[in-house]
Amino acid sequence: MNIFLDCIPCFIRQTLDAVRLVTDDELIHEQLLREVLDLSRGLDLQQTPPVIGQQIHRRIRRLTNNPDPYLHQKQQQNRLALELYDLMEPVVRNSKNPLENAVRLAIAGNIIDLGVKTSISDADIQKNVTDSLTVPLDQAMIDEFRSDFENARDILYLADNAGEIVFDRLLIEQLAKKKITVVVKGSPVINDATMEDAISTGLTKIVPVIDNGSDGPGTILQTCSDEFLARFEQADLIISKGQGNFETLSEIDKNIYFFLKVKCPVIARHLQVPVGTFFLGRKGVEYAKSIEK
Amino acid sequence: MNIFLDCIPCFIRQTLDAVRLVTDDELIHEQLLREVLDLSRGLDLQQTPPVIGQQIHRRIRRLTNNPDPYLHQKQQQNRLALELYDLMEPVVRNSKNPLENAVRLAIAGNIIDLGVKTSISDADIQKNVTDSLTVPLDQAMIDEFRSDFENARDILYLADNAGEIVFDRLLIEQLAKKKITVVVKGSPVINDATMEDAISTGLTKIVPVIDNGSDGPGTILQTCSDEFLARFEQADLIISKGQGNFETLSEIDKNIYFFLKVKCPVIARHLQVPVGTFFLGRKGVEYAKSIEK
Repeated sequence: MNIFLDCIPCFIRQTLDAVRLVTDDELIHEQLLREVLDLSRGLDLQQTPPVIGQQIHRRIRRLTNNPDPYLHQKQQQNRLALELYDLMEPVVRNSKNPLENAVRLAIAGNIIDLGVKTSISDADIQKNVTDSLTVPLDQAMIDEFRSDFENARDILYLADNAGEIVFDRLLIEQLAKKKITVVVKGSPVINDATMEDAISTGLTKIVPVIDNGSDGPGTILQTCSDEFLARFEQADLIISKGQGNFETLSEIDKNIYFFLKVKCPVIARHLQVPVGTFFLGRKGVEYAKSIEK
Repeated sequence: MNIFLDCIPCFIRQTLDAVRLVTDDELIHEQLLREVLDLSRGLDLQQTPPVIGQQIHRRIRRLTNNPDPYLHQKQQQNRLALELYDLMEPVVRNSKNPLENAVRLAIAGNIIDLGVKTSISDADIQKNVTDSLTVPLDQAMIDEFRSDFENARDILYLADNAGEIVFDRLLIEQLAKKKITVVVKGSPVINDATMEDAISTGLTKIVPVIDNGSDGPGTILQTCSDEFLARFEQADLIISKGQGNFETLSEIDKNIYFFLKVKCPVIARHLQVPVGTFFLGRKGVEYAKSIEK
């Protein structure tokens, strides 16, 4: 998905929100803002939005001299999600449709995204989890995913955020784990999950986890490692979590299932669904087959 | 009031909203956005926010080759306000405190501002009018204004928007009209009232109206005419309507009463009142003496 003009004021606002979260130094706030304005005025709109997010967050890390500014938030999100895991796991296991409920929760977990909003309260996360179990779900799309998954042999699961990967674990536990490799980011960007989060949340104990070699807040193939690109090429089914992965992969010609919570009005318009939608879609398949919230 | 960093993403968003209201040509949207990003990256934050608004709207008029892009909206707003005038005038006249109610309505009229939001529904305006009659009002501040007004000899009333000037007329009719000169903008900017609006709403029939010679969405003294500056210098009381006039005059050492509806979070923080406040304040006097909504 290309950058829309509406993304630009949003980049500028996100820049300010993000840098304020990372440092109180107002000179750095101003310097970064000016750098991002400079970057934006010559922007190639044929790029995907996470390409700019990658540039902005590289600058934040450089200007604040902090390689992982969201470390504390990520640790906290993992901790909260692990607490919720203990409550959710039996709910999924004992339900009539464990796979369906695990999909619902995996999408619910996608609310833990500091790229769009700078803070998400524990109460927001918990409410989203509760709501997710009752929002209407397109059963046909779930069935298609189930059947496609059964036929696939080599599956990549592109994770999105810290905390959220605990919710992904619930879904992965309902699937044939042997066929799945989870992919995290190569190095820190916003609160995106890295190998550290996969280890600390126990994901590496149940499934192979690799990283994509990139610091893009999505899957920006041009900045991923050759190792990841080879695995991406070879996979016959890809599960893509979150907006950043959707934005970067929506036009890629692969068998990709997109699971995300729609948090921005531009993506909502692009997908023709309301903001807040628990979205489940596939390239080439009617995107409106999603769960509206 | 100086530009805050938070104003910058807002300028960018307002630019896009404004140019879309004026033309459907997406190339112009993009060109203007890039020009405003370029302007913003080198911005002198010691300026007031309307200085940038002035630059942005000059560019919109130039790029669209339209000297008065908001003409239609202004005419519509004047028409609606004149309809409301017939309902409001007897309410003010027959009330126990005509001056107080006229102040309430003059502030209510300040919602008709296309600088902050690109559209305001008739229903929003009507609700705001109804609400204004019951929001709590700082009686001491009204009394101070009344007494100060009585002692003043040469009063400038700095109008803000089209439509709103009909509400201003209600207030002016409660005051000693002979002492008042209303000031409109020198040429079109957003939906700010110009001489055309003062004439079409009948204001020129009851009170002298001059223009300030400027196309700034506020009172940017550096871009006002010498004639206006002489009158401004000479006035012993100034009534300043709206956010733009507040932003440009809040630090000026004159006896200025600011009447406005607080529509932006930066001004709200600056004044330490919630967004939505019906604000009535005076330089040097505790600003929090305002009507909270």
